Amino acid sequence: MTAEAFQRARRPEQKQQRQDAILDAARELARRDGVRNVSLADIAAAVGIHKSALLRYFETREQIFLELTAAAWRDWAGALRAELDTASPGTEAEVADVFARAFAGRPLLCDLIAHTPLNLERNVSPEAVRRYKLTSLGAVDEAAALVRRALPALTLAEAREFVAAMASLAGALWQIANPAPALAELYASDPALALACVDLAPRLRRTAGILLAGLIPSRNQA
Amino acid sequence: MTAEAFQRARRPEQKQQRQDAILDAARELARRDGVRNVSLADIAAAVGIHKSALLRYFETREQIFLELTAAAWRDWAGALRAELDTASPGTEAEVADVFARAFAGRPLLCDLIAHTPLNLERNVSPEAVRRYKLTSLGAVDEAAALVRRALPALTLAEAREFVAAMASLAGALWQIANPAPALAELYASDPALALACVDLAPRLRRTAGILLAGLIPSRNQA
Repeated sequence: MTAEAFQRARRPEQKQQRQDAILDAARELARRDGVRNVSLADIAAAVGIHKSALLRYFETREQIFLELTAAAWRDWAGALRAELDTASPGTEAEVADVFARAFAGRPLLCDLIAHTPLNLERNVSPEAVRRYKLTSLGAVDEAAALVRRALPALTLAEAREFVAAMASLAGALWQIANPAPALAELYASDPALALACVDLAPRLRRTAGILLAGLIPSRNQA
Repeated sequence: MTAEAFQRARRPEQKQQRQDAILDAARELARRDGVRNVSLADIAAAVGIHKSALLRYFETREQIFLELTAAAWRDWAGALRAELDTASPGTEAEVADVFARAFAGRPLLCDLIAHTPLNLERNVSPEAVRRYKLTSLGAVDEAAALVRRALPALTLAEAREFVAAMASLAGALWQIANPAPALAELYASDPALALACVDLAPRLRRTAGILLAGLIPSRNQA
C-alpha cells in the first residue's frame, strides 16, 4: 500500500479498508517478531503512513492488538465449532486434543492472551475494552457449550472453568515455550535447565486431560 | 538512604548493602505500583542515586526484578515447607488450599511470574537467567516433593505437573484479577462483564482442587 493510497478515507468502506490494512500489517509483524517487539512506528512503516495518520483509525498501538485478539478469539471459536460439533459426545482425550491444537496452532492468539491484561487493556478506552471483553467472553461461552455437548456429564459452569483455565495456561505457557534465541540455546545446552523447556502442544494436551478428568471428582471437595 | 551513603562501595559487605537497598526499593515500588509501572529511574530516585550508579550493582532494570523473583520463589517454598511438612499425608483439599494461599498471599510473586518470560528474562545476560532458573526450578522441585509427601499416591512427575500448572495460572490470573482501576469499575458496573472478574484465592483453590483430582484418573488417557 502506497502513501498515496492512504490519503484520508472519506467513505465508510474506505475507512474499513484502511483499518483492515493496518490490522493485517500489525498481525504479520506480530507473528514474525512477537507482540512485545512491534511498535506503533513499525506498523505505520509497514503500512507506509505516518504514525499520526494511523491514529485516525485506532486509539493506540494497544487498541490495534486488542482488535487482533478479538479476531483471533472468533477464529479460535470457529475452529472448535468445526471440530467439536461432530464429536457429540466425545471422550476427554478427544476434547483435550482439540483444545491443545486450537491453541498451539494459533501462536499469535497465545502471545496476545498474555499481553491482554498486562498491557493491551491498560492503554485503551474503557469502551474498547468493553467491546473486546464481550467478544472474548462470547468465545469462551461458545467453547464451554461445545465442551458440554461433547462431555454431557459436565455442567456448563465446569465446562467454563475448563476453558478459562486452558486460555490462561495457553497464554502463560506460550511465553515460556518461546524464549529469546539466546535463552533457547542456554536451556538446550545445560541439562540442569532441561525442565525449563516447554513443548506447547503436548503440555496443553496433558494439562487439558488432567483438568477434564478432575472436574467431576473434585465436585465435593471441602 | 542519602546520596552520600551511596558512594561507591569498596568492600564486599558494602556492595551487598547497596544491592539490598536497591532491591528493597524496587520491591516496595513494585508492590505499590505494579511491576510494569516501575522504571530504573523510579528505583534510582527511591534509593537516592543516579541511574548510572545503580548500574554498577545490576545489569538492567530487568535483572533487579529477576533477583526479586528468585527471592520470592525462595520465600514461597519456605511457606509451603512450613505448612505441608506437618500435613503428611493430607487431603487434596488441604494441599489445594495451601497452594492457593501461598500464591494469593504473595501478590508481588504472582505479578513477577507473568513478567518473567515476557520481559525479565529478555533483557539480562544468559548467566543471570541461568542463576534465576536454577532457583525457580529448585523451588518447584521442593514444592513437588512436599506435595508428594502430602499425597503419596502421586508420582513426583505428577506433583511437578501440578506445581508448574499452578505457577503459570497464578501469574496469569493475578493479572486478570488486578485490572487498572478504570477497568475494575467498568467490570463491576456492567452485568455482561461480571465473568471478567476473577477473585484470585478462590479461583486458585478451585483450580488446584480440579488438577489434584484429575492427575490419577488421567494417567491412562490416550
